[in-house]
Amino acid sequence: MPLPAEAVTALGNILGNRISLSRSDLDLHGRSEAWFPPTPPEAVVYPETTEEVAAIVRVCAAHGCPLTAWGAGSSLEGHALAVRGGISVDFTRMNRVLKVNPEDMDAVIQPGVTREALNVELRATGLFFPVDPGANATLGGMASTRASGTTAVRYGTMRENVLGLQVVLADGRVIRTGTRARKSAAGYDLTGLFVGAEGTLGLMTELTVKLYGQPEAISAAVCAFDAIGPAVETVIQTIQSGIPMARIEFVDAATAAAVNAYAGASFPEKPHLMVEFHGSTAGVAEQAQSFGEIVADNGGSGFAWSSRPEERNALWTMRHNAYYACLASRPGATALVTDICVPISRLAETVEETRADIAASHVPGPILGHVGDGNFHAILLVDPRSPVELAEARRLAHRMVERALRLGGTISGEHGIGMGKLGHMAAAHGEAWDVMGEIKRALDPAGLMNPGKMLRQG
Amino acid sequence: MPLPAEAVTALGNILGNRISLSRSDLDLHGRSEAWFPPTPPEAVVYPETTEEVAAIVRVCAAHGCPLTAWGAGSSLEGHALAVRGGISVDFTRMNRVLKVNPEDMDAVIQPGVTREALNVELRATGLFFPVDPGANATLGGMASTRASGTTAVRYGTMRENVLGLQVVLADGRVIRTGTRARKSAAGYDLTGLFVGAEGTLGLMTELTVKLYGQPEAISAAVCAFDAIGPAVETVIQTIQSGIPMARIEFVDAATAAAVNAYAGASFPEKPHLMVEFHGSTAGVAEQAQSFGEIVADNGGSGFAWSSRPEERNALWTMRHNAYYACLASRPGATALVTDICVPISRLAETVEETRADIAASHVPGPILGHVGDGNFHAILLVDPRSPVELAEARRLAHRMVERALRLGGTISGEHGIGMGKLGHMAAAHGEAWDVMGEIKRALDPAGLMNPGKMLRQG
Repeated sequence: MPLPAEAVTALGNILGNRISLSRSDLDLHGRSEAWFPPTPPEAVVYPETTEEVAAIVRVCAAHGCPLTAWGAGSSLEGHALAVRGGISVDFTRMNRVLKVNPEDMDAVIQPGVTREALNVELRATGLFFPVDPGANATLGGMASTRASGTTAVRYGTMRENVLGLQVVLADGRVIRTGTRARKSAAGYDLTGLFVGAEGTLGLMTELTVKLYGQPEAISAAVCAFDAIGPAVETVIQTIQSGIPMARIEFVDAATAAAVNAYAGASFPEKPHLMVEFHGSTAGVAEQAQSFGEIVADNGGSGFAWSSRPEERNALWTMRHNAYYACLASRPGATALVTDICVPISRLAETVEETRADIAASHVPGPILGHVGDGNFHAILLVDPRSPVELAEARRLAHRMVERALRLGGTISGEHGIGMGKLGHMAAAHGEAWDVMGEIKRALDPAGLMNPGKMLRQG
Repeated sequence: MPLPAEAVTALGNILGNRISLSRSDLDLHGRSEAWFPPTPPEAVVYPETTEEVAAIVRVCAAHGCPLTAWGAGSSLEGHALAVRGGISVDFTRMNRVLKVNPEDMDAVIQPGVTREALNVELRATGLFFPVDPGANATLGGMASTRASGTTAVRYGTMRENVLGLQVVLADGRVIRTGTRARKSAAGYDLTGLFVGAEGTLGLMTELTVKLYGQPEAISAAVCAFDAIGPAVETVIQTIQSGIPMARIEFVDAATAAAVNAYAGASFPEKPHLMVEFHGSTAGVAEQAQSFGEIVADNGGSGFAWSSRPEERNALWTMRHNAYYACLASRPGATALVTDICVPISRLAETVEETRADIAASHVPGPILGHVGDGNFHAILLVDPRSPVELAEARRLAHRMVERALRLGGTISGEHGIGMGKLGHMAAAHGEAWDVMGEIKRALDPAGLMNPGKMLRQG
């Protein structure tokens, strides 16, 4: 029994009524966006301060009780599920923007602040936080999974956008990593170690993130290609020519068809690129023009760009809704969404092989992705009542991962490992996976921080 | 005796005549660019392959012999000195560019490749490697110290530009970290952990680095200000307006005077900014014009920009020579060079306080730096025969570090810790320094990898 009664009592002494054992709360924190079976925690706690988090961790350490962090519950690899029992630490009450420093273009925030809430709070400053994984995730969750999304090609992922952290370690110590300086050569990059550690080394209680000036002008464009190859070649040539795209997204013909059906759009049912440029008015016009020439060289059609906000917003709303459009394309289906990332020179063949593999299967799977990074997703649509289909989707996802490794890429560009990709870590990292385990044991010898995820299971 | 005779025999069996015990070799590897007393290693080894490095490490592990990596010997905090004896692992024979992938804009290199050699090798590809710490350092050394320099404001530091590593661990295991994909959410960021670890966790034997397209156009400009404040304000406004500077450097009046004397130049003896823009022809013209308006708003004078290579090269040669110009401004002097980095909103007061502190001392110390990052250096010029002056310079440097910490910055923006800043680590990191020690002990329990540096000394 990971959560003894004395631990509940001790947690109640710290949190008052902010500990919940109610069935509905446990169930809510036992579900994820993904296809994993429900695994409710034994209790949910709602801390409001770093001190409370540290006190919670000390109680859990004393009782051998596992801790799993909860943000918005939007992760796709089961990161936030308390699969070994214990407590779910729900950070939604730690949702304050503590400080915005406009001159330094940074902000200090609590981990429960969501991406959208942060940008609403920043609106008056002329600044914004660019990392956008699609879901309205919390920044703590985004940092812990090293999230990225459509804008990473220009602004980087969470790896590049977290300057510093406050972290509660497995023994209750509270440390600070990084500073508000833009760079540092002072010791191990602990910030970078906790970002992407999926809560297995400690709990983030404060983040310092980089902000950016809202661009003077934004232009966006969409264009269609007859095949995947020329679309990807367009991306490669655009990157090589140094055109600073803010976003460049790929959707395949199946996704375009799904969007047409879902939103009454009329895109040609072909592979598309959607692109956005940020800069000065003259700059974005020049970038769009240069990009248009590369599109034409590669046989793309329908290229049109616009800097009108309503047209841009329609474009990106469409991209953001692509997931739901794909889901709706098979009524009653649930999605196994998987992501890989490869060197861009291998992207066309990776997408084409994946496309062919899915076409030969009975499971439909539109493909879309952040092609400027070499990163793409397959949305494998399965009947949730069919173990056969789920097994087939997992086989397709497995082959995607093998393909990524064979071509010099990574088993996840942005969704992370969690439980979903645990089985691929040995193949991806070899003995480096053991090194991750050695670091884990050094900082969490009892193995209480988000057990069952990312690391070799003892 | 850290290096027993049996270890020398075993190393000789691996390396043949590529182990040296000659006085001149030991002395050469016992000196640094900085003010530290000479500390020769007991032997120097010159491996040519990863397998040889692994074999060397296993011999040293068996005999309890310390290992310290040597690249170009250009670091400024004594990183490469074998202060606890043992062997110096000289990587200059591992100096091959193993693979350039133009489509993916990356290269796989051995750690002994120097920055200039890499760029010579890349010349025909239209690509370049941007990180430029001034010295012609090796890429292994640059990665190990998390080097940056003039271009970090645009292209990032080594943290952002190393995609993957091959590392020999303290027990001789060889691991690979990262991939050639541009991003990854697959496990702990071991690449980021080894970058900046100063050789205390393992020896890098291969690096995969990002490359960039040579810009279509480059323009550069220099301008003078009556005081430090408006120069820094110009930088802040330029960053906030989103103008993508490729470099922005500050030199103070003392540095301008030194350069005039050294190179027969005729800069006004005032604070200066030097700036460079990379982009399209129209883009750099627009950027230079926008920057010029900000300069004028802040009372800057003498602003002129040029995209002619010979004028640009003269400007940056001058900046690169500033260190030697400062040295020459006090004949016979040696330099204690120190660096700190602060949030840019605190940069003006940090530089002004430092300027006043130095002015009140009897040690001259020009100030210059990479102000786009909030990073600057003082070149404290001391008579090497005067313990009093050295002590005074160390006091000035100590107060700079205290100032950086007080204002939310870091004790080193780019030079690193080595021995020189060991005494500041506790103040900078608190209990996070202990966490670094816990990671160190997990990966190097015998403490043989570059002992005496960065970590709490047992």
